Amino acid sequence: MQRYFTDEKLSIGEIFKASADDTHHMKNVMRFRPGDAFHMVDGSRDTFLCEITSAGETVECRPLELVEEAPELPVDLTVYCPLLKGEKFDWMIQKATELGAHAFSIYDADRSIVKLDEKKRRKRIERYMKIIREASEQSRRQHIPEIGFVPAVKELSLDAFDHVLFAYEGNASNPAASLNETLQALSGGDRIAFIFGPEGGFSEAETEALSSHNSIRLGPRILRAETAPLYALSAISATFE
Amino acid sequence: MQRYFTDEKLSIGEIFKASADDTHHMKNVMRFRPGDAFHMVDGSRDTFLCEITSAGETVECRPLELVEEAPELPVDLTVYCPLLKGEKFDWMIQKATELGAHAFSIYDADRSIVKLDEKKRRKRIERYMKIIREASEQSRRQHIPEIGFVPAVKELSLDAFDHVLFAYEGNASNPAASLNETLQALSGGDRIAFIFGPEGGFSEAETEALSSHNSIRLGPRILRAETAPLYALSAISATFE
Repeated sequence: MQRYFTDEKLSIGEIFKASADDTHHMKNVMRFRPGDAFHMVDGSRDTFLCEITSAGETVECRPLELVEEAPELPVDLTVYCPLLKGEKFDWMIQKATELGAHAFSIYDADRSIVKLDEKKRRKRIERYMKIIREASEQSRRQHIPEIGFVPAVKELSLDAFDHVLFAYEGNASNPAASLNETLQALSGGDRIAFIFGPEGGFSEAETEALSSHNSIRLGPRILRAETAPLYALSAISATFE
Repeated sequence: MQRYFTDEKLSIGEIFKASADDTHHMKNVMRFRPGDAFHMVDGSRDTFLCEITSAGETVECRPLELVEEAPELPVDLTVYCPLLKGEKFDWMIQKATELGAHAFSIYDADRSIVKLDEKKRRKRIERYMKIIREASEQSRRQHIPEIGFVPAVKELSLDAFDHVLFAYEGNASNPAASLNETLQALSGGDRIAFIFGPEGGFSEAETEALSSHNSIRLGPRILRAETAPLYALSAISATFE
């Protein structure tokens, strides 16, 4: 079933107009006609089965019934990750969206290979939001993850999170816990910041800045930067869902 | 530490010659000189710290000590997956190798989009083995997964496996179990065949052919074909490692 998102609050029986983007998609991609059905997730993250009532210049739709579903992870996990080379970041956010990430924060890593000026960053966010939106629709999410640029590790504001974890093999003063152990300490609704390093790993200064947080080992193999967030999200889903 | 693989059995102190491919890599990519060190996994899946003893026309090396490591998943999981469009199959096998897959079997799905003749299949296997080998080195595996083409679902020989699972939301006659529940029934050393569908999902005939096996639900979101194997492998690693 095709899925769209709106910020509006929908009510059963109350006709609403599709947005310009959705109108284009409904008419030119899906070739919807009156009576055709789709799912629309509204501003309260409720999913409605809707039907097209008219498909002229504007497309009008009627919510028919509420759809019972629970596609969101029971914890809100924000993926902190620097930009990665080539298409790796694109597909990491696509896959992490499928796997239930709540948000993405792109931080400035000491060993980041990719650096962008303000103008390029704005263009990137537009492109990333398109990838995330499509992945949210395809995987049938009720929440579209947000994405934005944040400062370097030592300047991050992490006080709003219940848990701050970082993917690192650990050292003598901060031995890494297994992810499985760590997951046992999480409760539904918890907000988690999970910080992943760039291709070259965290710098010593970053490891030092993160030393008050929990370093987490993601299995005995060396995962590429773009694979680590997918491992963490999959493990969380398999444990809680 | 750079890692290579050999089928030979190595012994501490006994000098051996690097293969033609490794010689090229050691001399022209790594620019190794006598005294430089690397890891070599031998035919018994033991990892040795080795040093270069001479780097002339042929490169000679000496195993110095055995490296204690356990980078393999405690269960052998073979990923059954049809070919996928574009680069999706390439990166699935790269990531699944990082995540510990034991082997890959490419089956002929009813809804497979990609079909190849015998000659193209041989070329593909060569290319896939290169991806798998590089991912095995990079992720520090001791085992290089094998990959090959196998027949359609209803003709698969699965008797050698301890568990046959398939990723499917289930139906009334064969309701899907959660992966987590299923993992509790696994023991170290078990051989698992995990069958994943193509982009369009299993056909009815395939679901029928698989009905005597365990259908497994991979969380409440709809994962793309190339994401599902990574979810399963990550969950197994997080549970057992």
